[in-house]
Amino acid sequence: MAVTDRALQGVTVLELGQIYNVPYCVLLLANLGAEVIKIEPLTGEPARQRAGGQDATPFVMLNSGKRGVCLNLKSDKGKELFLALAAQADVVVENYRAGTLDKLGLGFEVLHALNPRLILASGRGFSRKGPHRSLAAMDLTVQAMTGVMAATGFADNPPVKAGPAFADFLGGVHLLAGILAALLQRERTGQGQHVEVAMQDALLPALASNLSALIDSEGALPERTGNRHGGLALCPYNTYSAEDGWVAIFCATDRQWLSLCDVLHRPDLRADPTLQTNPGRAKRMDELDGIVGEWTGARTRRECLALLGQAGIPAAPVLALHEVLHDEQIEASGMLRTIQHPRRGAMRVFGSPIDLSDSPRPELATAPGLGEHTRGVLRDRLHLSDADLDALQSEGVI
Amino acid sequence: MAVTDRALQGVTVLELGQIYNVPYCVLLLANLGAEVIKIEPLTGEPARQRAGGQDATPFVMLNSGKRGVCLNLKSDKGKELFLALAAQADVVVENYRAGTLDKLGLGFEVLHALNPRLILASGRGFSRKGPHRSLAAMDLTVQAMTGVMAATGFADNPPVKAGPAFADFLGGVHLLAGILAALLQRERTGQGQHVEVAMQDALLPALASNLSALIDSEGALPERTGNRHGGLALCPYNTYSAEDGWVAIFCATDRQWLSLCDVLHRPDLRADPTLQTNPGRAKRMDELDGIVGEWTGARTRRECLALLGQAGIPAAPVLALHEVLHDEQIEASGMLRTIQHPRRGAMRVFGSPIDLSDSPRPELATAPGLGEHTRGVLRDRLHLSDADLDALQSEGVI
Repeated sequence: MAVTDRALQGVTVLELGQIYNVPYCVLLLANLGAEVIKIEPLTGEPARQRAGGQDATPFVMLNSGKRGVCLNLKSDKGKELFLALAAQADVVVENYRAGTLDKLGLGFEVLHALNPRLILASGRGFSRKGPHRSLAAMDLTVQAMTGVMAATGFADNPPVKAGPAFADFLGGVHLLAGILAALLQRERTGQGQHVEVAMQDALLPALASNLSALIDSEGALPERTGNRHGGLALCPYNTYSAEDGWVAIFCATDRQWLSLCDVLHRPDLRADPTLQTNPGRAKRMDELDGIVGEWTGARTRRECLALLGQAGIPAAPVLALHEVLHDEQIEASGMLRTIQHPRRGAMRVFGSPIDLSDSPRPELATAPGLGEHTRGVLRDRLHLSDADLDALQSEGVI
Repeated sequence: MAVTDRALQGVTVLELGQIYNVPYCVLLLANLGAEVIKIEPLTGEPARQRAGGQDATPFVMLNSGKRGVCLNLKSDKGKELFLALAAQADVVVENYRAGTLDKLGLGFEVLHALNPRLILASGRGFSRKGPHRSLAAMDLTVQAMTGVMAATGFADNPPVKAGPAFADFLGGVHLLAGILAALLQRERTGQGQHVEVAMQDALLPALASNLSALIDSEGALPERTGNRHGGLALCPYNTYSAEDGWVAIFCATDRQWLSLCDVLHRPDLRADPTLQTNPGRAKRMDELDGIVGEWTGARTRRECLALLGQAGIPAAPVLALHEVLHDEQIEASGMLRTIQHPRRGAMRVFGSPIDLSDSPRPELATAPGLGEHTRGVLRDRLHLSDADLDALQSEGVI
């Protein structure tokens, strides 16, 4: 097998993506070797227009390796051009509001009649099977309506959203898996199909522990427990303030508790018969958290982690975001790379978490400027002349 | 195409999965039509042993549709049996600690020599390319070390973990995509390969907004903003206490602000020239949040949402976990189904978020009991006799 073989070699993807959900899905398709054409309205997709002109930071982070084409899909000629591209493509991916593609006359039936091998993939907020099928969805509202907020935060504080956009991203990567499964099925059937993933459906399984605790305790446990164990069954288990930040520490086993007593120089606790097991320690959670916190409070995170690590006690630093940006492990993983952007200079962009031993990740070009490849793509794929392109431009189609 | 055709028809998967990460990945493979054999140590995988005997709630939720085989992989005969199964399989999926499979003599080189078409997929905590490659990883520690905790919670409170196990689940579904990509590549090359996904790498892209805000503000913005807009640029944008819970409300546009003033019966605010745009409103965030909160505080969530919905203002209820368990939309989506478990009675289990129009999801059987299918699988696949099986059992191999 040639070293340059890639999993999705020869696969052409048309992206009609917005913000995070589908753009992330398609970024991973590009990393797997697909050829990606991102189609945007003439004013660009919404993520472009945040701070930074047409090259907003999150847009640049999530759109490497795509060619950028502007097409007015509300015009008849724009639709025609899109259909001509779709006739040659393997996958169309979109996350417009439910029903939008149908209203444009570009829904699955139309695409399937044109190109029976084409796969249409749709990122949604809520499942088409339920009453919220047409509800506009944003990461915040999906988190609110799926229990993520209820399960996050301190018990005596309000529910709080998870900071990262987990609904968008979990939705996007499930959609990626659906596309790949449909491509596999096509190998046997020769037919494309319609793939749909709702962000809410993609979020829910991550609540397995939280929902289980609720069911098993018949509602006796609090919905959220801050950084304590979800079942309030393990102790110590928390984050503790150090001189320069926070440290997460937990004792998964009773032996780790005894080791922790040694690290803390507390033979009295070590010998205390009421503290030998987790149920006993859990009864004195506030007191023990206080003792551990006093110890961490007098040290830096590095000092804490060195002593805990030597003793075999699970612990981790709570990294600040600026530390994440320069973390040695993340740097080495290739997940945050520095590229030179033609307009914005040095920028950090995402790599791909999917590591395939025989499908080397291509060096992806910088996210496209608005309409950067409109003429090139239409010339190469649809054989339009410069005169054709000039006319389309003056008509507001491209 | 036959209605019963499924994307992964004919694909055999051996799961060596623990807790959430790989069991979720393989649950989705089963939903796509793969035949799954879950191989556990004689004492069961760790998720079984939580509350509820061998059938703990989260185990039952995540292991539908798998056959359960117990095999002692530390014994020579256990290894032999595993290799005999692997010789006939398409995919092996594992999330042991890095290096464990190699130490057992069952690493990628061994499997590839035995069955060149086999794909080995490994769920990891941290990328093999960095210094933490061998570090034990749990959802909490990965969240801590990737910025999720820093980005979650209220600005004047400590960092807090996202309640759901996002590291495990994001890792698992990226691993699923990697397996499907490798199966696609095999269609062309005839060769298997090694797929790896680190939970940390899979979490990081979900921080696109948070990292962008840090970069764009050069560190001037707080790392976490509770339920307020991450950039503190939109207002009102928050969750507000109602009589019976919380409501998330935000004004994405200036027009929505004017509508909100009407809903609140506040012509004075509507007319205030300093409140016509988001930058102006953001300067008076505490005051405006107080006004909106006073309005919601005098109403139920349902009343708030009805009035806001009529006015076209984005809003959502913050559902409690017990409400999620019985939510009409989630019920309709098929993501939480009620099954009859032979030992535990009625149980809630997860469906699959991946909706393929031509690959109907099979009716998955209940999660297997410990070793429920050991004899059946070894008899069917390896043609062992009852006498063979008795001997293996008495030797502690199965």
